[in-house]
Amino acid sequence: MEDIIKEAYIESIKNIRKGDKEEEVKKIQEKIKKAKKIIVATNNEKKFKVIKDIMLKVCNAQIKMINIDTKFADLTRMPALYKGLLALDTEKGDIYISRGRLGVPGSGSMLIILDKKGRILTASLSPSSVIHRENIEKRIKKELIEALKRIGISIN
Amino acid sequence: MEDIIKEAYIESIKNIRKGDKEEEVKKIQEKIKKAKKIIVATNNEKKFKVIKDIMLKVCNAQIKMINIDTKFADLTRMPALYKGLLALDTEKGDIYISRGRLGVPGSGSMLIILDKKGRILTASLSPSSVIHRENIEKRIKKELIEALKRIGISIN
Amino acid sequence: MEDIIKEAYIESIKNIRKGDKEEEVKKIQEKIKKAKKIIVATNNEKKFKVIKDIMLKVCNAQIKMINIDTKFADLTRMPALYKGLLALDTEKGDIYISRGRLGVPGSGSMLIILDKKGRILTASLSPSSVIHRENIEKRIKKELIEALKRIGISIN
Amino acid sequence: MEDIIKEAYIESIKNIRKGDKEEEVKKIQEKIKKAKKIIVATNNEKKFKVIKDIMLKVCNAQIKMINIDTKFADLTRMPALYKGLLALDTEKGDIYISRGRLGVPGSGSMLIILDKKGRILTASLSPSSVIHRENIEKRIKKELIEALKRIGISIN
Repeated sequence: MEDIIKEAYIESIKNIRKGDKEEEVKKIQEKIKKAKKIIVATNNEKKFKVIKDIMLKVCNAQIKMINIDTKFADLTRMPALYKGLLALDTEKGDIYISRGRLGVPGSGSMLIILDKKGRILTASLSPSSVIHRENIEKRIKKELIEALKRIGISIN
Repeated sequence: MEDIIKEAYIESIKNIRKGDKEEEVKKIQEKIKKAKKIIVATNNEKKFKVIKDIMLKVCNAQIKMINIDTKFADLTRMPALYKGLLALDTEKGDIYISRGRLGVPGSGSMLIILDKKGRILTASLSPSSVIHRENIEKRIKKELIEALKRIGISIN
Repeated sequence: MEDIIKEAYIESIKNIRKGDKEEEVKKIQEKIKKAKKIIVATNNEKKFKVIKDIMLKVCNAQIKMINIDTKFADLTRMPALYKGLLALDTEKGDIYISRGRLGVPGSGSMLIILDKKGRILTASLSPSSVIHRENIEKRIKKELIEALKRIGISIN
Repeated sequence: MEDIIKEAYIESIKNIRKGDKEEEVKKIQEKIKKAKKIIVATNNEKKFKVIKDIMLKVCNAQIKMINIDTKFADLTRMPALYKGLLALDTEKGDIYISRGRLGVPGSGSMLIILDKKGRILTASLSPSSVIHRENIEKRIKKELIEALKRIGISIN
């Protein structure tokens, strides 16, 4: 991953970068598919189960939830991201999946997949529950499938 | 906005927070609709025009692009967000709209709307262009409409 | 401030930037000295008093503490900074002063001054209390005086 | 490290946290002393040499500079930190040392040591060069010695 990122950065500096490349998307897919340990940044059993069931279709990993209350991330500017970083800082894993508010209160939710250095691999967004009024487990399922789909991993 | 955020934060601390509230979503809508000056974090005329045309349907604002090369944000962990912060730090405005890569190279793109303190009001995501292979102006249009829709602002 | 930052950014892009300029330091001083409202990101009366007494020697501002528990920032990667952002997001002010842990547990403390957009104007650091074993009010006093001194504001 | 952080976070949640603990500071020392590979986030030979010479007194590590232009970090809100993250994202290492501007133009400089997940282990600050007018290598030397000293590592 470091080499691929370095190459992309150097392209940006030289002003010859033309957008994502297939090998970059492949590398992200590979990182997720080859993960041996996945940390889910929630301490809610139901949400955890939804995420675990889907991820087990993608990779052969140990999947773990955390035992710290993540609601504190709601006092940050990007709760979804900071939940993920909280998991990253307190657990060893290959990838980290978190879900929470996107930004300010009212801004809807974000599901986000980080690698072991805290880099964002993919994500997905949902409208505010005020807008969609859908069951939360169903919504999380959709979000995770969408996050995987946008980097080319399809779930049946 | 500060009072609404404070209230939400206090609910989180007290562990009584139940997700976004209608008044919070309304407040975000209002901030966008009442914006007098919008800064678009791009120096690309075409991309700017797409965003400007849509925003003029939502609000009666002066809309401006920036004159700094934003490609440097591509060397950060969240290029879309850091383009927005670059605009925030160099221009006075009520809201800031930026668009760029979500995370690592290959992670697709994000469009993001910030307020004048750099708080995230809404956003939307697209797959990697490797995946969608769509015209970029069309894609940006979709992204902006989607970002507005998820907080309850519809564009015809 | 926006214009000064823009100029500095353009110098960096052109590769002609040679470090801080006197007018930039003067601008920071001015922002602090002319502040009309200062928010201190603490809900501890004693710490607040130390900071207030010093700031009143520098500027003629209303100085306010916040009424949200800031300990939650301790679950972030930069507690001192995130306390400041928490204050920024919940209160209107011209400048924000916060103090907390620098980074990981054990990394000592940081005092930080932000402007109304959340930009860092100055800061100072202390060793871990395990290392210095000094009274906390005395330490905060030193930190604030040091933070001001490094941008050219002297307190007698 | 993850376990120590988790314990500290849980103490914060329970509201029983009393500041840094000796074992936490020891852990940070150990991480630095046992580093096998150190990445210095600069492409300037002179600055690199200053840092390398000091670090070789502390640990028995391979020490490497990066070959990407880091000036782009100057367009972010915390140039010193983002230089470090740029190194983290493009090189494998145990710890990362970076140095750059603290915040806005005029805010002086910061030297910062990150671990392999991008967590801040220690740091130090210098006034704006406009204020101190000192030779830069001398200044970097002071900063690194200070950063190590504040977590209990002394250099003779």
